[in-house]
Amino acid sequence: MADEAPFQLLHNELIQYIYKCADSGETENGRNITKLENMGFRVGQGLIERLTKDTARFKDELDIMKFICKDFWTCVFKKQIDNLRTNHQGIYVLQDNKFRLLSQLAAGKQYLEQAPKYLAFTCGLVRGALSSLGVKSIVTAEVSVMPACKFQVMIQKM
Amino acid sequence: MADEAPFQLLHNELIQYIYKCADSGETENGRNITKLENMGFRVGQGLIERLTKDTARFKDELDIMKFICKDFWTCVFKKQIDNLRTNHQGIYVLQDNKFRLLSQLAAGKQYLEQAPKYLAFTCGLVRGALSSLGVKSIVTAEVSVMPACKFQVMIQKM
Repeated sequence: MADEAPFQLLHNELIQYIYKCADSGETENGRNITKLENMGFRVGQGLIERLTKDTARFKDELDIMKFICKDFWTCVFKKQIDNLRTNHQGIYVLQDNKFRLLSQLAAGKQYLEQAPKYLAFTCGLVRGALSSLGVKSIVTAEVSVMPACKFQVMIQKM
Repeated sequence: MADEAPFQLLHNELIQYIYKCADSGETENGRNITKLENMGFRVGQGLIERLTKDTARFKDELDIMKFICKDFWTCVFKKQIDNLRTNHQGIYVLQDNKFRLLSQLAAGKQYLEQAPKYLAFTCGLVRGALSSLGVKSIVTAEVSVMPACKFQVMIQKM
């Protein structure tokens, strides 16, 4: 189904708009990534509020991460995270084997350098959701083979 | 359910971003509306392509409009248009009694002047979808009582 399409297409427009508006250059690219990350953060905050309105209190950090991988991911991307791993010391790796916001780029290496701008929003999304649940984190993403993607969440102990 | 929330929240971010970037002023407001309308146009084009991939050929204009009111609207807003009227001379009025992109604004008259920026993207969305189906149109929107909203489609005969 095309259920995730409106979000995906709007996300594309947003990226294109931000990049078109800004002047080119290395610094500007970093700034655009930050803008996208910040927007993701706010959307993540709003979204988790709605999603957890009627859920039971979370047991622990792992319980929260499982919610992000299942309910939260499904709400945005219409699929779950395929694999969640943790070192049990505050690092979590969320693997999506077919990440929707990358699946429109051709697989292979030729667009690999374009990947960061398609991931920044989602890094912010996860960070915003966690933040609203009282978990401070740093979220980064890495792609080795498109459209598979790994999000690394490092919990910041307070 | 929160199914339409990711799209809705992202749409908000987009509006805020566009308005924040631009200088204030009357001309600029018009330009922002146009930008939003154009983005909606492209998203509408992409979306209708995916949605009609496996559908039968449309019988006529009215058949197309019904598809927009049902399948297309449901895909984006998770509900159908509540009422479709036509004068059978190329004018269609699509009424949504609870338009999702307005439902977060307080009902009443105090935010009525904010409405156009929440409608521009969707006007473009409909125009883009119709355009991809070979129907050239002008789409405008009007709000009398929030969050109800009417979209007027004027078909341009070619």
